Amino acid sequence: MKKTIFFTLFIIALPTLLLSVQLPAGAEGPKYNASGELLPPENYREWVWLSSGLGMAYGPAARANATNNPPFDNVFVSPSAYRSFLQNGRWPDKTMFVLELRSSLDKGSINQNGRFQGNLIGFEVEVKDEGRFPGKWAFFEFRGTVTPATSAKQLPTTAECYACHASNGAVDNTFVQFYPTLIDVAKKHGTFIEK
Amino acid sequence: MKKTIFFTLFIIALPTLLLSVQLPAGAEGPKYNASGELLPPENYREWVWLSSGLGMAYGPAARANATNNPPFDNVFVSPSAYRSFLQNGRWPDKTMFVLELRSSLDKGSINQNGRFQGNLIGFEVEVKDEGRFPGKWAFFEFRGTVTPATSAKQLPTTAECYACHASNGAVDNTFVQFYPTLIDVAKKHGTFIEK
Repeated sequence: MKKTIFFTLFIIALPTLLLSVQLPAGAEGPKYNASGELLPPENYREWVWLSSGLGMAYGPAARANATNNPPFDNVFVSPSAYRSFLQNGRWPDKTMFVLELRSSLDKGSINQNGRFQGNLIGFEVEVKDEGRFPGKWAFFEFRGTVTPATSAKQLPTTAECYACHASNGAVDNTFVQFYPTLIDVAKKHGTFIEK
Repeated sequence: MKKTIFFTLFIIALPTLLLSVQLPAGAEGPKYNASGELLPPENYREWVWLSSGLGMAYGPAARANATNNPPFDNVFVSPSAYRSFLQNGRWPDKTMFVLELRSSLDKGSINQNGRFQGNLIGFEVEVKDEGRFPGKWAFFEFRGTVTPATSAKQLPTTAECYACHASNGAVDNTFVQFYPTLIDVAKKHGTFIEK
């Protein structure tokens, strides 16, 4: 009898559960095509946003506009990695970061001061995939219009992002020193290195 | 036999399902204390971030620092409201927006150019609660350190935010014109008004 009640409840609840279940961690992790190129992460705008800066940007697309039209840099991290970081101050395997660069605008609508965000001008991804990359982390730059069919080759490990992140990232190749709500988390867990 | 298999699968899957089920829309909606004051939304840093600007800020805390130390404004929306907006370009009842104001810093770590985000200096919430507020939307400003026990009175409807949002928001009292990924969504659904 109990079994029947459970089963009935299960059948009633099933559609709701299926619709509302979050993606498991693996589904948020990196996906590659048959050539080993990274596919663009889906729905990263619904990932956890860590911070935005203005004119801090690095990488070619950013520097080109750095003086007259400083770009915004927006950083997102995969939700399961974020939740894991809150627990122990470390990025788990399969962590993905997206760095979005957007133009900044100063006149528009009612805004007469300051700057707000415009179109996408750069899209870079940092992936932790321990079984795939000898240095654990790898960087990818998507160019042009990004569609689900777009893919990006891994940037060579001689690209400056590798050395810069390794030398200057406060936590494990990442710039946690610029993510204000994560600094104390990392310090609490002893993973923050002053840089 | 099939029933037994289903039931077994259910029992195996249950802990995973319980852990991973997203909060229903109601759980993300506004919560008030017995005095009718708004409680701070929990985990809003895991909500969907819409955009950040620099020095665009409005409100007293922002204006005080607008010239020498322009604040960042970060806008988050409750995830269920975001998903609904993607479907029809409208904000459903119980939509909540958080406006976070953070100091901007120009020197720190390896950053020598541009500005990055520092400590929290302002925390405001816009709520759509059609059954509670005659104008459907209401504004709240949390002051000082925000804890789960903090609450905020509704700002009086004479506060400038009400008139400004009503007159200048491109979609239903909200500044969708400053949220670059939502502009086309609203235009597609015919809810965007040029402002």
